[in-house]
Parts: sequence; C-alpha cells; structure tokens
Amino acid sequence: MTTQKLTAEQSQSALDELNTDLSTCWEIIDGKLAKVFKFKDFQQAFGFMTMCALYAEKQDHHPEWSNVYNKVAVQLITHDVSGLSEKDFNLAKKMEEFAAFG
Amino acid sequence: MTTQKLTAEQSQSALDELNTDLSTCWEIIDGKLAKVFKFKDFQQAFGFMTMCALYAEKQDHHPEWSNVYNKVAVQLITHDVSGLSEKDFNLAKKMEEFAAFG
Repeated sequence: MTTQKLTAEQSQSALDELNTDLSTCWEIIDGKLAKVFKFKDFQQAFGFMTMCALYAEKQDHHPEWSNVYNKVAVQLITHDVSGLSEKDFNLAKKMEEFAAFG
Repeated sequence: MTTQKLTAEQSQSALDELNTDLSTCWEIIDGKLAKVFKFKDFQQAFGFMTMCALYAEKQDHHPEWSNVYNKVAVQLITHDVSGLSEKDFNLAKKMEEFAAFG
C-alpha cells in the first residue's frame, strides 16, 4: 500500500483527534509532528525509547528524537512523502501508550 | 570523590588522547564533547544507544544525544561542574567500544 501524504487539513484533523483523545499536547512544528515527553528519570525515559524503538523498527517507520536525562523530544515525519502521513499519527498514538506504562 | 572540572588545557589534552588512540573524531563544541556516530541502520544505532544507556545509568552520568535512523549525535558535559570532566572522556571511550561491536 502506498503511503499517502496528508493535506494540511487532514493533518490538522488528525492532530485534533490525537490531542483530544489523549489530553496530550502534540504540535506540528516545521511540518513535523512534535512532542516533548518528560519522565521521572533517565531509566523511565530510556525504557520508553526502547519500547518505541522496537515498535518503530517493526513498522519500519522511525522517529527523529533526542534525549537529555528524563526528557525525550520527538519529531515525526514521513520522508517518503516529504510530509506527514498516517504512519506518523499511528506512531504518536503508540508513543502515548508506551509513555503511560511508566 | 568530587568531580573535577577540567581546564581548557586538560580538556584539549584528553581530547587529543581520545582521538589519537581511537582514530576517531570527537570535537569540543560549545563546551561539550561531541561526536556523530553513523551505523548501518536503525537497529545497529539503537543497539549502540542501549549499551550506552545501561552503562550511563550505572555511572549516573548520562549523555545528551539525538537519533535519526542510523545516526546518533552525542554531546557530553558534566553539569555538576558546568564543564567537562574525566567522566565525559571516560564515557566517550566506552561509547567507542560499544560502537565497535556493531
């Protein structure tokens, strides 16, 4: 199945849904779906990253992310379509699930 | 044991030693010990990060780092001394060891 690039309207709609469902705060910054997750400590933060990494590898859709101690800053984009796709919103939802495990 | 802040001369000396021993290319950028590691793929990159994370947690000395697919950009600093310490150079050496496993 070909990955479809979402239009600005579709992205906004998916973003609204993501934030409503989860009471979280994802933003679209420079065309990327972005959020900073904050955890208790490094162990929790890296545990989260590990869950995300295994999932991302399986999906073959990987985050851009940085980590400083208890914070993980995530940016999602679908390079194949040079923009956002459902893959990004799907990964964002999974990340919320993984973060809730902490 | 108190962590000592290295002087500029001591940092340069430690950097030279690090780069000579390992034929690697660490730099001091904005007061942080920095390098970008490049791997075959995400699996290798995150495997490297996992080894580093376990070691860092044990040492209670954590990297600042970001990852995009097969690249891991690392920045090391010792916040307790607002500068570089032996902990950073020690972690850098370990990271080289872990990167060599790939």
